[in-house]
Amino acid sequence: MELGQQAAPASDEVIGRCRRLFEPALRAAVSRLHPWSARMAAFSLGWSDVDGRPYEGNSGKSVRPAVALLSAEAAGGTAESAIPAAVAVELVHAFSLVHDDIIDHDERRRHRPALWKAYGMGPALLAGDALLALGVAQLAGDGEAMRYLSDALVELVQGQTADMAFEDRPWHGTGAVTTAEYTEMAAGKTGALLGAAAATGVVLGGAPELAPRLWEMGRELGVAFQLADDVLGIWGDPRVTGKPADSDLRRGKKTYPVLAALAAGGAPARELAALLDDAPGDEEAVRRAARLVEEAGGRDAAETLAGRHLSAALATMDACLPDTAALRAVCDSLIGRIR
Amino acid sequence: MELGQQAAPASDEVIGRCRRLFEPALRAAVSRLHPWSARMAAFSLGWSDVDGRPYEGNSGKSVRPAVALLSAEAAGGTAESAIPAAVAVELVHAFSLVHDDIIDHDERRRHRPALWKAYGMGPALLAGDALLALGVAQLAGDGEAMRYLSDALVELVQGQTADMAFEDRPWHGTGAVTTAEYTEMAAGKTGALLGAAAATGVVLGGAPELAPRLWEMGRELGVAFQLADDVLGIWGDPRVTGKPADSDLRRGKKTYPVLAALAAGGAPARELAALLDDAPGDEEAVRRAARLVEEAGGRDAAETLAGRHLSAALATMDACLPDTAALRAVCDSLIGRIR
Repeated sequence: MELGQQAAPASDEVIGRCRRLFEPALRAAVSRLHPWSARMAAFSLGWSDVDGRPYEGNSGKSVRPAVALLSAEAAGGTAESAIPAAVAVELVHAFSLVHDDIIDHDERRRHRPALWKAYGMGPALLAGDALLALGVAQLAGDGEAMRYLSDALVELVQGQTADMAFEDRPWHGTGAVTTAEYTEMAAGKTGALLGAAAATGVVLGGAPELAPRLWEMGRELGVAFQLADDVLGIWGDPRVTGKPADSDLRRGKKTYPVLAALAAGGAPARELAALLDDAPGDEEAVRRAARLVEEAGGRDAAETLAGRHLSAALATMDACLPDTAALRAVCDSLIGRIR
Repeated sequence: MELGQQAAPASDEVIGRCRRLFEPALRAAVSRLHPWSARMAAFSLGWSDVDGRPYEGNSGKSVRPAVALLSAEAAGGTAESAIPAAVAVELVHAFSLVHDDIIDHDERRRHRPALWKAYGMGPALLAGDALLALGVAQLAGDGEAMRYLSDALVELVQGQTADMAFEDRPWHGTGAVTTAEYTEMAAGKTGALLGAAAATGVVLGGAPELAPRLWEMGRELGVAFQLADDVLGIWGDPRVTGKPADSDLRRGKKTYPVLAALAAGGAPARELAALLDDAPGDEEAVRRAARLVEEAGGRDAAETLAGRHLSAALATMDACLPDTAALRAVCDSLIGRIR
């Protein structure tokens, strides 16, 4: 058993407990907003439908706030002390999803219309700004915690920008995106906010000396998570992911499985390169591309690399936190979806 | 002479001195961004043209950073100590303009294409996020200053949201926007960041006890500034403002001169109400609406109210700062444009 002596708590139970802790504070924060922004925030957080009626659906995985609360607890503090950190990272995450969907023209999110599809582009953009402003406000008075949140914000936007810039790069040959570039992008886009969750969690939990290492832990975790997400983006079941299948491939996103497949060489890689250069549009071509990525070893490479980054994160966690069972369960569940 | 014993320094000179102080730090901050974001930031700050070539043009009025630096100085500190505050408010201001232009579909800004027209909507949205993240980063470690910046951010977005929500309200009768609602919107949209500039300036300048009053001072100033801007939006010379004439009227923006004209009653107000209910589209109708607003006293009412808020701001300034000559010159120049 991976967890040593301890029985692993189920991640759903752990996350449920965390959600009961931070959600009242999150709802109180959102109620500070202009009624219009508050309604859009409630929709994007999965609390209500387009008309503002309560909605019992998928309100997201709440992984970031759970990491904040459980890091505080694992460091010997109380989960309660880290509630402002949990609320902050959940709001910043919600902001990033709202703006991402606008930028990528994604029309669906968690089995529902994206915020901009439901309320219009201008209002959604502004609601995203409101979520971000509210996120920052949670930690504004605590210089030490705020520095981590602020660094995460800069790196998050940096990572999104790098990801967008990748779209104009060639698939292979000179100028192709390297594994190192991909990892840096993922560490920013997905890792930074997980790093901030863990670091601000222990700062508020009374163990600020652990924050620098937990920041690094979160970034490793984020790279693993992004790799898992890339795999799901190609081979995930749309009924589970809530997004159209193969949308990353269709859009020409430089995801790791494809980059790794192209870099592997051999017949499937060459066939894949030729196919991608033609920009596969129809369903048949996209399906063939996905098959070639798998044949060329791109899926295996992504899963192996995800496992490596997850192990690095867990090793850091074990090295500096006394009681990691609950936190580990949540982190494992992040990546477990692809296996 | 309004300034008592002291000769009034020219606001252009004062602002030029301020710009020489904060611009190197602002450029250093922008250079931290992803090269793509940095290029868009340089364009939106007026430093370069679309292709990234240095541009000697109108880089904005730099009023907010000047207020930060001069508040620190007026409180007995050095302007240098407030440079991080100056950089923060200028970046947050730049963020708000970039997103505003996207939301309002404004194609021109300062005699040049708006950022989204020049680089595309997605990249511009993300560049706005990057400017905001960088702005927050300037003060993240200083809990006291950060609280003002964070409050300003929340209120700024709140005010923009209120302004947008006004567009769906009727021009007159039940449900029309009241003067109190307008003032609250303007205090948020335009006042909050000026309040943060002054408050963070004195916090960094070593006089944090003055910050609450200077926050209020900035909000008053902001309402005055927004009223002046409303006047310029209808009667300003497009060659000076850099925006198309009458665009606020054409778009049905609930600006104060129009609201005051409609509330005034009388023949011109009734004629204006009928005209606005038909949504004036062609140039002739818009010109007639502007004339009616003026005849009904809307322009006078806006200028009078602007003067009142400016006086309130200056009175607060005089009451709590020992040496206000330079700061006063900059504040006067904000409003002087309409007289």
